[in-house]
Amino acid sequence: MAKNPLNVGMVGYGFMGRTHSNAFSQVGHFFDIPYKPVLKAVCARDAGKVKAFAEQWGYESIETDWRKLVERKDIDIIDIASPNDTHLEIAVAAAKAGKMVMCEKPLGRSAKESIQMVEAVEKAKVPNMVWYNYRRVPAVMLAKQLIDEGKLGKIFHYRAKFLQDWTISKDLPQGGQGLWRLDVGVAGSGVTGDLLAHCIDTAMWLNGGIAKVSGMTETFIKERHHNITGKTEPVGIDDASLFLARFANGSLASFEATRYARGHKALYTFEINGENASIAWDLHDLHRLQYFDHRDEGKTRGWRNLHITDSDHPYMGKWWVPGLQIGYEHTFIHQVADFLEATGAGKAAAPTFREAMATDLVTDAVLKSARSGQWELAN
Amino acid sequence: MAKNPLNVGMVGYGFMGRTHSNAFSQVGHFFDIPYKPVLKAVCARDAGKVKAFAEQWGYESIETDWRKLVERKDIDIIDIASPNDTHLEIAVAAAKAGKMVMCEKPLGRSAKESIQMVEAVEKAKVPNMVWYNYRRVPAVMLAKQLIDEGKLGKIFHYRAKFLQDWTISKDLPQGGQGLWRLDVGVAGSGVTGDLLAHCIDTAMWLNGGIAKVSGMTETFIKERHHNITGKTEPVGIDDASLFLARFANGSLASFEATRYARGHKALYTFEINGENASIAWDLHDLHRLQYFDHRDEGKTRGWRNLHITDSDHPYMGKWWVPGLQIGYEHTFIHQVADFLEATGAGKAAAPTFREAMATDLVTDAVLKSARSGQWELAN
Amino acid sequence: MAKNPLNVGMVGYGFMGRTHSNAFSQVGHFFDIPYKPVLKAVCARDAGKVKAFAEQWGYESIETDWRKLVERKDIDIIDIASPNDTHLEIAVAAAKAGKMVMCEKPLGRSAKESIQMVEAVEKAKVPNMVWYNYRRVPAVMLAKQLIDEGKLGKIFHYRAKFLQDWTISKDLPQGGQGLWRLDVGVAGSGVTGDLLAHCIDTAMWLNGGIAKVSGMTETFIKERHHNITGKTEPVGIDDASLFLARFANGSLASFEATRYARGHKALYTFEINGENASIAWDLHDLHRLQYFDHRDEGKTRGWRNLHITDSDHPYMGKWWVPGLQIGYEHTFIHQVADFLEATGAGKAAAPTFREAMATDLVTDAVLKSARSGQWELAN
Amino acid sequence: MAKNPLNVGMVGYGFMGRTHSNAFSQVGHFFDIPYKPVLKAVCARDAGKVKAFAEQWGYESIETDWRKLVERKDIDIIDIASPNDTHLEIAVAAAKAGKMVMCEKPLGRSAKESIQMVEAVEKAKVPNMVWYNYRRVPAVMLAKQLIDEGKLGKIFHYRAKFLQDWTISKDLPQGGQGLWRLDVGVAGSGVTGDLLAHCIDTAMWLNGGIAKVSGMTETFIKERHHNITGKTEPVGIDDASLFLARFANGSLASFEATRYARGHKALYTFEINGENASIAWDLHDLHRLQYFDHRDEGKTRGWRNLHITDSDHPYMGKWWVPGLQIGYEHTFIHQVADFLEATGAGKAAAPTFREAMATDLVTDAVLKSARSGQWELAN
Repeated sequence: MAKNPLNVGMVGYGFMGRTHSNAFSQVGHFFDIPYKPVLKAVCARDAGKVKAFAEQWGYESIETDWRKLVERKDIDIIDIASPNDTHLEIAVAAAKAGKMVMCEKPLGRSAKESIQMVEAVEKAKVPNMVWYNYRRVPAVMLAKQLIDEGKLGKIFHYRAKFLQDWTISKDLPQGGQGLWRLDVGVAGSGVTGDLLAHCIDTAMWLNGGIAKVSGMTETFIKERHHNITGKTEPVGIDDASLFLARFANGSLASFEATRYARGHKALYTFEINGENASIAWDLHDLHRLQYFDHRDEGKTRGWRNLHITDSDHPYMGKWWVPGLQIGYEHTFIHQVADFLEATGAGKAAAPTFREAMATDLVTDAVLKSARSGQWELAN
Repeated sequence: MAKNPLNVGMVGYGFMGRTHSNAFSQVGHFFDIPYKPVLKAVCARDAGKVKAFAEQWGYESIETDWRKLVERKDIDIIDIASPNDTHLEIAVAAAKAGKMVMCEKPLGRSAKESIQMVEAVEKAKVPNMVWYNYRRVPAVMLAKQLIDEGKLGKIFHYRAKFLQDWTISKDLPQGGQGLWRLDVGVAGSGVTGDLLAHCIDTAMWLNGGIAKVSGMTETFIKERHHNITGKTEPVGIDDASLFLARFANGSLASFEATRYARGHKALYTFEINGENASIAWDLHDLHRLQYFDHRDEGKTRGWRNLHITDSDHPYMGKWWVPGLQIGYEHTFIHQVADFLEATGAGKAAAPTFREAMATDLVTDAVLKSARSGQWELAN
Repeated sequence: MAKNPLNVGMVGYGFMGRTHSNAFSQVGHFFDIPYKPVLKAVCARDAGKVKAFAEQWGYESIETDWRKLVERKDIDIIDIASPNDTHLEIAVAAAKAGKMVMCEKPLGRSAKESIQMVEAVEKAKVPNMVWYNYRRVPAVMLAKQLIDEGKLGKIFHYRAKFLQDWTISKDLPQGGQGLWRLDVGVAGSGVTGDLLAHCIDTAMWLNGGIAKVSGMTETFIKERHHNITGKTEPVGIDDASLFLARFANGSLASFEATRYARGHKALYTFEINGENASIAWDLHDLHRLQYFDHRDEGKTRGWRNLHITDSDHPYMGKWWVPGLQIGYEHTFIHQVADFLEATGAGKAAAPTFREAMATDLVTDAVLKSARSGQWELAN
Repeated sequence: MAKNPLNVGMVGYGFMGRTHSNAFSQVGHFFDIPYKPVLKAVCARDAGKVKAFAEQWGYESIETDWRKLVERKDIDIIDIASPNDTHLEIAVAAAKAGKMVMCEKPLGRSAKESIQMVEAVEKAKVPNMVWYNYRRVPAVMLAKQLIDEGKLGKIFHYRAKFLQDWTISKDLPQGGQGLWRLDVGVAGSGVTGDLLAHCIDTAMWLNGGIAKVSGMTETFIKERHHNITGKTEPVGIDDASLFLARFANGSLASFEATRYARGHKALYTFEINGENASIAWDLHDLHRLQYFDHRDEGKTRGWRNLHITDSDHPYMGKWWVPGLQIGYEHTFIHQVADFLEATGAGKAAAPTFREAMATDLVTDAVLKSARSGQWELAN
C-alpha cells in the first residue's frame, strides 16, 4: 500500500536545518507513519551553500527566497529552521498559503510575535507544531507517563537548569552565522528564549501552568565585536537567567539557564518531587531516567537508575535491542513521527503554536520581573 | 609533656549532644592538639536521661540546670547543643562567666538574638565558635583551598540546595523531643534556619558576602498535632524556602531548602562556576569532590571525581590510608581540632559568633523577602 | 563534483541488516566520503519479508538467493549480515566474484572457517572488513589514540566483560528467527563468539596480541525447546565464558561474557591500567570515557569523566554540537565512513578479515582451554 | 547496672593497632554491649613508640614483650594487630593462657599456620575471631541479609576485585615498618593474602564454599631495595593475583587483586548475579549498595542506588540520622560489638579462626594453581 507523499519545504540549513532534514529522512526507516516525507526543496539566501546542502541531504530543489517556497504548489509543509527573527513572517505566510507549518523554538522573539502566529495557523486551520524536541526524549516521555499515571502523587517541587559554557570568552563575537544567538535583534533574548524556553516547555507539559515568577538576569560581557557591523557594540542579550516560580498546582520551582557554567556543554536537567515518588533527568545522559519510589520496601528503597533502552520504554521498540542507546537527533525523528501520525488522524500534535505561545508568555514575564524586581504573572 | 586539660561542660544530649561529645572524645586520638579535653559535666533537665548519657560517654558529672553548669569553676568551655531557643541565654551567661563558648547553629532564632550573643562574647573576649560543621568536610575544605588559590578565576554562579523528605507525612506531630525543629517557637524558623543556614554559611565562606535576596517559602502542612500542648495547632515554620541572590562579587546564586523532596535524606549540594574551573560537592557522598578545570587539554578534559582520602587532602593525613573514607561525625572532630589549635595559639577560630550572625542576617532577609515579595538587602 | 556510486548488495534483514542499511543510508549525510553508496539490492529467503524491508529502506531490488546477488554485475560490495553459518560460503563466493566484502562478526564459526575466508579475499585482493563496530565508538577510538600517544605507559592490566541477561528463562526456545544465537549449529558457539569476540577484538587492537588463555564455560540451561525441530533438545552453546589471559606485552587480563548477569542488557566494559594512566569505558554510557592521569597534581587528581561530544573527539565534529550525544547505530556509520575512505585511498580498513581471524583463534583457544582445563596458546 | 570490664591487651600499634584501639574505645558509645572494654595494655618492641601510642589512646600500661602480655592475669583478651609472621606464635600462646583471641587477617601466612591456630583456640575453647572487617560494612551486611532472604534466587555469577596502585614505583623499598607487606618472609604472600583474602572471605560468607580455582600471579618489579638488610633483593611477593573459580553451588566466579591498577586506592568491589536479582558494592563508596530486582515493573526497573544510612539498614540505627554516612573505621567497631554480644551470649562470632582458615586454603590453592598451571581444589 503506497503512502501519500508529504512534500517538505525546509527553510534554513544550519544546525536545525540538519536535525530537521535528518528527521524527515529517517522517520520512515523506523516508524510506521501514514505519509512518505519527500525532501522537495530547501531554501536559504546563499545559493551556493544551499545547493551543497541540498546535494548532501538529497533535496530535489532549492530556493533562495522563502516567499517563492511558500508559494510553490508542490510543497505540503513549511518547516522553519531559520533564525528567530524570520519565524513570524514565514509562519504567517505559510499558514495563509494553506501549508502545514512546523517552526523551531522559541516560536516568537516575544509573545507579541507568537500571538500573531497562533492566530494565523488557527485561522487557516493548518496543522502546526513547534520543535520543542526534548519532550520526545524517551526518558522524558516516560517521565510524562509516570506523572500522568499518578505515580508521584501531589507535586511539591520542580527544578530545572540548562547550563552551558560556550560564551565565556570575551573574544567571541556577536552576530553572523552560527552566532546570531548572541545578537538580541535576531534572537529576541539570550538564554531566556534559547535555553529557559526548553525548560519551561517541558515543565508546563509535565506539571501544568506557571502562575507567577521572580526573575534575575545578567549580561557578564557588556560589549562584543559584532560580526556584521564590524564594530564593538553593546551586548543586548542575557547571559544568565534565573527565576523562582509558583505553579498553578501550588508547587514551588526554581529555574536557571546560563552560558557561563564552566564544565557544562548542554546540561539540561530537571527534577520533580512528589508526595510518593520523584523523577530526575539530564541531557548529558539522556538515555537514563532517575526514579525514586517511596512505596518500595524500606531497606531496598533507593533511586532507580533506569536505562531507557527497553521495548517497553517510549519509542524504544522502534530502535535496536535492550541496552543499546540512542542519541540527540532521535528526538527530532520522534517528533516528526508523532506529528505525522497525529496529522494523519486529523488530530493536533503537541506542542502546537498555542502551547509554544504559553512558553513565550513565561519568558516574557521572567524578563519583565528581572527588570522590575517584582513578582510578575506568567500568563 | 602533659597537656593542659580542657574541661568541657556540655548542654544537651540529643543528636548534637552526641556529635559534640564524640568530637571531644576522639580529637586527641587523631590530632596533635594543645589541650586534653575532659568530659567534665553534661547538663539537661531530665536527670535520669542525662545520667545515662553521662555514663555512656564517660562524663564525670551531671547538672540539670545550665545556670549551675555555667557557674562551676571547674568548667573551661560551655558547649551549647540544646535547642535554638536556649542559645541566647546560655551563651550570654557563659560569656559573662568567662567561659569559652561553642554553640550549635543557627546562632540565634533571628539576628536580633545573635547580635546580643556576639556582643557578649566580644565584650568578654572569650574564644567562641559556631558549629557549622560542613566547612570541615575535607572535600569542602579542599574546595576552599582551590578557590583561595585562584583556580576558579572570576566567579559567575553559585547554587546550593539542602533537600530532605522526613516531614511529608501530615501525621508527624510538631514539638517535643526530637521534633522541636517543627515548633516555630523553639526553632525560630523551619528549613530556613535549619538547612539554608548551612548553605549560606558555606557560601559566604567560599564566595564572600551576599548583597540581596529574593525569597519564597511555603508551609505545605498547615496544621499538625502538637506534642506538648496535645492539640492540633497551626504550623509556624517554613517547610520549603528558596531564594535567588546576588553576591557582593557580582555572581548570581540560587538556594533552596526543603523537607519535601522525596528521595533525599540530607542532600546538601553546592556548585560554583568560575571562569576557569568549577567545583561541585554533595553531602550524600561527602568524601568526593567534583572538579572541572578548563585548562586541561581539550580531548581529555572532563569533570574529575576526586576521592578525598589521600594524605594531601585536608585532615586526611590524620586518619587511615588512601582509599578509605571517613564520615559525617568527623566534621565535628575536625572542628574541635581547629578550635583548640587556634585557641592555643591565641587566635580566633572560624566561624566565630560574628560570622554566624552574618548568616542569620541573610536568613532574616530571605524570610522578609518571602513576606514582602521584594528583593531585600542581606546585611 | 559527482561521486562514484557504490552499489551495495545486502544479505540479511535482521537486526544487523537494519544497522548496516542505516549506515549506508546515513554516511553521506554526515561524512565526506569518496563514494555515493546506493542501496541496490537486499537478499533473503523470504520474498515477502525482504520486499517489505526493501521498501522501508529504499533498496532498488530484492533477491531471494544470495548466489544470484553475488553474480550480479551491478553490485560492487557484498555485505553479509546473515547468521554465522552463512558467512563462509557467501564471503568466499563474493571474493571470487571480485566484490568488496564486508561481513558481520564473528568472521567464522571457528578459525577453521575464517582462515578460508581470509585466503579467499587475499587471493582475490578485494577490500574486506569485519563489523567489529565497537572500535568506532568515539570514546573507544579516543582510548586508542591515548594509548598510541603513550599516555598510559607500560600496561599492567586489561579487563573486559560483556554482560547480558536475556536468556535466563528456561522457557526461551533455541533456534529460529531472532534466536539462532542459541543454536550452536548456526552460531558456532554461545557467548564466546557472540560477545567475548567483541571484547577480544577491542583488546588486541588496544593492547596487542594475546599469548595464552585459561578458560571456563558453563551452560546453565541444559535443554531447550528448538523452534525448528519442534523438539526439546540439548543446548550446545555456552551461556557463560570466562578466561584469564596473558598478553604478548606481559600484561595480565581477565575476560568474561555471560547472558546470565541479571540487570545488565548489553554491558560491555573494559578497563586498562598503565604505569601512568588508566582508561575505562562501558557500552551502557558509550558517550563517556573515564580517564585517570597520575601526572595530575596530587590533590586534584581523580578519574576524569569525559563527555565525548566535543569536536576534538573522534568523529564528533561530524555530528551535532558539544554536549549532545550520539548512540549505538552511529558506530556502524563510522565504520562505513572509514571503510570507504580507506578503500578510496587504496588502503586496507581495519579490522580486515585477517585481523578478525586472530580473534577467532583466541575464542577457539578459550573453548579448548575450557575443555582441557589447561592453559592454551591463543595464536 | 555496671557492666563487666573486659581488659584488652593489644599487640601492635601500626595501622591495624589504631583501627582496633579505636574500635574498643568507641564501641560503648554507640552499642549496648554486655562488657565494658578497658584498654589495659598495648605491646610492641619499641618502648618509646609504644609509650606514645599508649598515651594517645589511653592505654593504662605498656609491654615490650608479647609473652609478658599474654601471661598477665589482668588481661582478658589478646588482640593481635602485628605483622603476619607473628600471628601463629602469639595466638597459640594466648589460647593456651586461656585468653580470648582476636587476630588480624590473614590468619596465617599459609593454611599450615592457620590450622595450628584453629587447633589451639578450639582446644582451649576460647572465644576467637579474625578481623575480616568488610563483612561489617552496613551495605555488605545488607547484601548478606538479602541473599539469605532468597531475594536473588539461584546464583549464577560472583566477581570481586581489590585494586590498588601504591607499589608501582620501582623506588619503593621492601620491608621495614609500614612496608612489611612487601616482604614475603613477613607477609607470606603479596596481594593474595593481603587483598584477595578479603574478597574470598566475603565471597564464601555470601555464596558458600569455593570448590576449585585456576590462578595466575605476577611480580612486576623483580628486585627492590630491602630496608632491613640494606641490599637490593629479589621480590618474593605477588604484585597481582587473578583467579577463576567454581563455587560449590555451581556458580562461576572471577577474582582479581593487584597493587598496579593506576587510579585505584582501595577499590574492593563485588557483584553477585542471581536469577531474580543482583547486588553490587564497592569500598570507595562503602555507604552505598547497588541492587537490581527483576521483579520490579518493566518500565521502571533499574539498578537501585541504596544510600545505606537509614535506621532499617544494619548497624545504622546506632549512628546518626538518615542521609549521614559513616566510614571505614566503623566496620571495626561493629566487629567488636558483634564479638562482645556473641561472647556475652556464649556464642561464636563469625568469622572464627576456623572460617578464616578456609580462606587461607583458597589463597594457598590460588598460589599453587599459579605455579602449576592447573585447576586446583580449594578445600
